[in-house]
Amino acid sequence: MTNLYFEDLQVGLRAESEEIEMRLADIKAFAAQFDPQPFHLDEEAGRASFFGGLVASGWHTAATTMRLIVSGGIRAAEGTVGAGIQELRWPQPVRPGDRLHIVSEIVEIIPSRSKPDRGLARVRVTTLNQNGETVQSMVSTIVVPRRPAKDI
Amino acid sequence: MTNLYFEDLQVGLRAESEEIEMRLADIKAFAAQFDPQPFHLDEEAGRASFFGGLVASGWHTAATTMRLIVSGGIRAAEGTVGAGIQELRWPQPVRPGDRLHIVSEIVEIIPSRSKPDRGLARVRVTTLNQNGETVQSMVSTIVVPRRPAKDI
Repeated sequence: MTNLYFEDLQVGLRAESEEIEMRLADIKAFAAQFDPQPFHLDEEAGRASFFGGLVASGWHTAATTMRLIVSGGIRAAEGTVGAGIQELRWPQPVRPGDRLHIVSEIVEIIPSRSKPDRGLARVRVTTLNQNGETVQSMVSTIVVPRRPAKDI
Repeated sequence: MTNLYFEDLQVGLRAESEEIEMRLADIKAFAAQFDPQPFHLDEEAGRASFFGGLVASGWHTAATTMRLIVSGGIRAAEGTVGAGIQELRWPQPVRPGDRLHIVSEIVEIIPSRSKPDRGLARVRVTTLNQNGETVQSMVSTIVVPRRPAKDI
C-alpha cells in the first residue's frame, strides 16, 4: 500500500498493519518528554484518576499510529504529507501492554483545483487494541502526487 | 491558567506559553521512533522533497504543543483529558532551530447533558514559530470538572 499515485486511489481501498506493543517504560518516557501529567507517569496517580490506572498520552497513541502508517498504512508516493486531520478522537484509553494496530481506508478522493500534478485523499485511520476496541480514530487528508509523465 | 473548574471558564479566556526550541537532534530522534520518512531524518533527502529541507514530523509538533499546554496552556483541574481534536492542521513546516510557543483560547463552553459534575470546553490552540507564523492549529475539546461542593 506504499507508493500510491493519485491514479491508483480508490474509495474503499484498505490496509491493515502489524502490531506495536505499548510498553510501560515507553509510555512513561513519552509522557516525561511531552505530556507530564501524573496519570501518564505514575501508577498510583493513575489509579486515583479519571482513568482508574496509568494510561498512555493520546499523543503517544497518535505518534504510534503514524509509525504504523509508515510501516503498514495507506501511503502516497514520495512520502505521506499530511494536509490536516479531522475528527481525532480517543474513545478508549491505552494501557501498558496493549498491542495496537491500524486499519486505514480511503474514504474520499479530491482532485486539486489548482495543482495539476497532485490531488488529495481522505483516509480514515482507526487504531485498535488487542481486543478489537478502537483507541483512536481520525480522518487524515494526505497529498498524493499524480504519476509522472513517461519520457517519450 | 491551570486548575480551572467549569465555573471559571469564560469564552475568550487566553493563555500564552513560553518557547521550546525544536533541535535537529530531537527532530531526528522523534522521527526515527515515530515517523521514519526521509524528509524528517536526513538533510539531503529533505532538500530533495516537497519541503525543500529537513522538517519535523507534524506529530512531533503536536506532541511539543501538548508539552506547552501542560506548562503554559489552558488546563482543567485534575488534569487535561482530551475528548477529541477537531481541525488539526499544519499550515507551515517546522524546521530545526525553530522556537515554538502556543496561544490557547476558550472558544466554547458546553455543559454536560448527562454528567452534573463536569462539562466540556473547546479550546483553540495555535502553535507559532519565532516569526509569528502558525505552524499548527487545532481545536481541542477538554473535560472540565465542576468545583466540588464545600463541606458543610
